[in-house]
Amino acid sequence: MTKKSKLLYEGKAKKLYATDEKNILWVEYLNQTTALNGLRKDLIQGKGELNNQITSLVFEYLRQRGIKHHFVEKISKTEQLIQKLKIIPLEIVLRNVAAGSLSKRLNVEKGTQLSFPIVEFYLKKDLLKDPFINDEHVLMLKIANLEEINLLKKKIRKINEVLIEMFQKAKIKLIDFKLEFGKLPDGPIVLADEISPDTCRLWDEITNEHLDKDVYRYNLGNLVPVYQEVLKRLLTI
Amino acid sequence: MTKKSKLLYEGKAKKLYATDEKNILWVEYLNQTTALNGLRKDLIQGKGELNNQITSLVFEYLRQRGIKHHFVEKISKTEQLIQKLKIIPLEIVLRNVAAGSLSKRLNVEKGTQLSFPIVEFYLKKDLLKDPFINDEHVLMLKIANLEEINLLKKKIRKINEVLIEMFQKAKIKLIDFKLEFGKLPDGPIVLADEISPDTCRLWDEITNEHLDKDVYRYNLGNLVPVYQEVLKRLLTI
Repeated sequence: MTKKSKLLYEGKAKKLYATDEKNILWVEYLNQTTALNGLRKDLIQGKGELNNQITSLVFEYLRQRGIKHHFVEKISKTEQLIQKLKIIPLEIVLRNVAAGSLSKRLNVEKGTQLSFPIVEFYLKKDLLKDPFINDEHVLMLKIANLEEINLLKKKIRKINEVLIEMFQKAKIKLIDFKLEFGKLPDGPIVLADEISPDTCRLWDEITNEHLDKDVYRYNLGNLVPVYQEVLKRLLTI
Repeated sequence: MTKKSKLLYEGKAKKLYATDEKNILWVEYLNQTTALNGLRKDLIQGKGELNNQITSLVFEYLRQRGIKHHFVEKISKTEQLIQKLKIIPLEIVLRNVAAGSLSKRLNVEKGTQLSFPIVEFYLKKDLLKDPFINDEHVLMLKIANLEEINLLKKKIRKINEVLIEMFQKAKIKLIDFKLEFGKLPDGPIVLADEISPDTCRLWDEITNEHLDKDVYRYNLGNLVPVYQEVLKRLLTI
């Protein structure tokens, strides 16, 4: 059995540990919740557990649909094993429906179906508040070459198709989501990080009720029963 | 002779009039100067005249180098005639050297030579403070199709080459600049708006002294002698 070793990194919602296996890392999902690039921070009992379970379910579903990713297996309520990879420092957002910063910055009414899924790159750098960048900035900063940029866009569009289908079965609309990718030691780019109501905007299919972190961002109530609802629905599909 | 008719539009630095010729407009360069998306506003005696003269010179130079644009002729110290066109609502920025918002947002030291000229699109919409957008937003907002986006990028890169060469002769480094383009009634996309120290960052070749609107933006002194210096140097080439 894989053994946990030293702490490598503590993020806003996860801790990352080395293991006794060279290419395997140990992730612990925390109850810590942040918004506004970390300006707001709260402990929400049970959130780590829920996100670990939801992410594990989603990654299993993606694996069945042929999407390569870093997830190996869930090993406890709040922990999972992942493959070690070199994270590409981009937060890649895909939007199916206008919401959040897109609505605000471009004055597109929240809830507007976009004519095609829009992909946006944000530089993953807390100190700069993850600024929005374009393809040329990605090249300039030597984060990825043109071929890799096109591959990342192709991958997130494919993942979007699978996630839309998955959430549809749970009577949930996938509004937008954020992904991270990384490079495995032998080269290929695979999906990384997590996919949960922390990183997706999920609306109830009928009521358009928020089933995601916007409940916390906009002080709409307790986040735990909302995440529990997402998990419950995903367990039925 | 072309006759001025009714006022069509008053912008931050120019007034636009119809004329008795259907496809010709009359531009008056104003002394008004703004910064911070219009939050700061001042009258600077002589600035309209200087920008009209500099823009006219630059457009003449571009014409000689085969660049198509809307400029017809300078008709007085503060006025010029231009071809009527449908402005594409983008402010297109090209950066050769890091400065301004690029330096600030991405933490690239001011003055750093970029490995290639970076093109950025901003949505021309005062109310939204001209937000930075990517190619997919341009498509989504139906501002331009993919072919037009590529054409705009090709055009600004070509214009950059000519401007670098022109300003080099005046011992000025072209740091970055903003262009607008428009569609002529019969279809083709041509360069529009102005090219002046209001829309370019220009640094002295030796001292790196600002020869542009940053003098006003950063309260570095009187803008008029600086613009006069640019005009003087351009008149010698």
